[in-house]
Amino acid sequence: MPPAEPVFRRLALIGIGLIGSSVARIAGARGDLAAEVVVSARTPATLARVAELGIADRIEADPAAAVQGADCVMLCAPVGVFAALTEAIAPHLAPGAIVTDVGSTKQSVIRDVAPKLPAHAHFVPAHPLAGTEYSGPDAGFVTLFQNRWCLLTPPPGTDPAAVERVAELWRRCGAMIEVMDPAHHDRVLAIVSHLPHLLAFTICGTADDLEGESRQQVLQFAATGFRDFTRIAASDPVMWRDVFLNNREALLEMLARFTEDAQAMARAVRWGDAAYIEDKVERGRRIRRSLIELRQA
Amino acid sequence: MPPAEPVFRRLALIGIGLIGSSVARIAGARGDLAAEVVVSARTPATLARVAELGIADRIEADPAAAVQGADCVMLCAPVGVFAALTEAIAPHLAPGAIVTDVGSTKQSVIRDVAPKLPAHAHFVPAHPLAGTEYSGPDAGFVTLFQNRWCLLTPPPGTDPAAVERVAELWRRCGAMIEVMDPAHHDRVLAIVSHLPHLLAFTICGTADDLEGESRQQVLQFAATGFRDFTRIAASDPVMWRDVFLNNREALLEMLARFTEDAQAMARAVRWGDAAYIEDKVERGRRIRRSLIELRQA
Repeated sequence: MPPAEPVFRRLALIGIGLIGSSVARIAGARGDLAAEVVVSARTPATLARVAELGIADRIEADPAAAVQGADCVMLCAPVGVFAALTEAIAPHLAPGAIVTDVGSTKQSVIRDVAPKLPAHAHFVPAHPLAGTEYSGPDAGFVTLFQNRWCLLTPPPGTDPAAVERVAELWRRCGAMIEVMDPAHHDRVLAIVSHLPHLLAFTICGTADDLEGESRQQVLQFAATGFRDFTRIAASDPVMWRDVFLNNREALLEMLARFTEDAQAMARAVRWGDAAYIEDKVERGRRIRRSLIELRQA
Repeated sequence: MPPAEPVFRRLALIGIGLIGSSVARIAGARGDLAAEVVVSARTPATLARVAELGIADRIEADPAAAVQGADCVMLCAPVGVFAALTEAIAPHLAPGAIVTDVGSTKQSVIRDVAPKLPAHAHFVPAHPLAGTEYSGPDAGFVTLFQNRWCLLTPPPGTDPAAVERVAELWRRCGAMIEVMDPAHHDRVLAIVSHLPHLLAFTICGTADDLEGESRQQVLQFAATGFRDFTRIAASDPVMWRDVFLNNREALLEMLARFTEDAQAMARAVRWGDAAYIEDKVERGRRIRRSLIELRQA
């Protein structure tokens, strides 16, 4: 079979962390994502590292220069800078360019990006559900998206052809596609990803605040449980700060629900309600079993 | 080198889940833990399975019969039944028998076991910090304790020779030994193990309570974060119920501290305090790095 035509002629990656550098590596390895990959990053050190790694056809310090002539622009920076980035690139977008992103929050991205784009451009918000505890251009790898979901949340009226091209790019990265409503996305992600991270960061701080000897022993005797939490907590601070701030309502709602449930558990522990505790633990088991059945585990 | 003399002539395991069946397998594989391993379990099905697996020299339905003539009795059941078990076995203990356990709470175990033992017996409370999300006699394996800590919490006045024999048994299982105060043990374990499990069970329930479509999609899109939590949450319900109820004070104190910290984080999210959030996430990272340096990660 002859190699498939690339989905895009020129793909501009704005920001190049774990996700962006994985896309760049896949583009280089497959040849059918984009004929040319241009990378822009905020710091000269990151750009120099991208050049060293050889994962871009061209690097550009200025995002406005990076997007010129690109038929696809993918925002791979922390979501907190999307508004400023969009303002910087909007006047330089090629006619009919598709702008997409990989941010973990989708209502905020639509709010920050869509109104600033020229009418000729298409915006297809996307969120590949893949990650590790590592970040930066060295962290990416070509199998990151294999059999993982990529959620697309196009606002009403988005050109279906643009949606399909972004979907095809992600399919070629190995991902499975699902289209969903942005508000629904933010709610689901708040409970499956954002709240677990918030809890993990918090318990690390709680442990870190313990007095001398206990604090030392927390590290020494980190049993299963705390150790797994710290793995989650090792993620990129700026990325997560931006996620929390940009999915505020859904995250606070899920945290409020969780806190009620944790307080109910605390009450059961205090008053010795064995049946209540056993029932809650049993539920955790059932959910785990469902996950395994869905092959997500 | 000739094989070492077994630490004990007859080791009676009362209860045979993940920990007990791992000890039984190691005893069978090494030959120098105990010359004979007797296993007692609550249910006929478990005893039959132990016989099928061939991991005991003898099985006994009655714990009183199992401990007869044993120079070491190891309680491997959920800590909630220790008081009743001790009452049942106490009159049948051999003179000078060493009673030990593998429970995750140590003050409660000392409270429930020590006063019921005859004066001639020695009590050496122990807690191997090892586990997986699996339970039951099939779950054990010989490398479970390799390079893991086993904490011993002997009450004041415990015979040092008895402590040393229990320590030697665990060293031969591959574990590293640390002796600590029972109250301090319970406090450290509350934060490194019991609280993380409580949070994991709770978030599974919170997710399970969501309405129809969201609930379904939590399972479908369980990203990193929630998936890791469910692994923790897949543990044995009765064991964890008993742990929570028997480390009540320390667990409630750590949960209270955690809740204060989570509420402070919620407030930072609500009011957009980016510096506060970033600082907390940064702390999680630092703790993770410390763990890796301590080779516990």
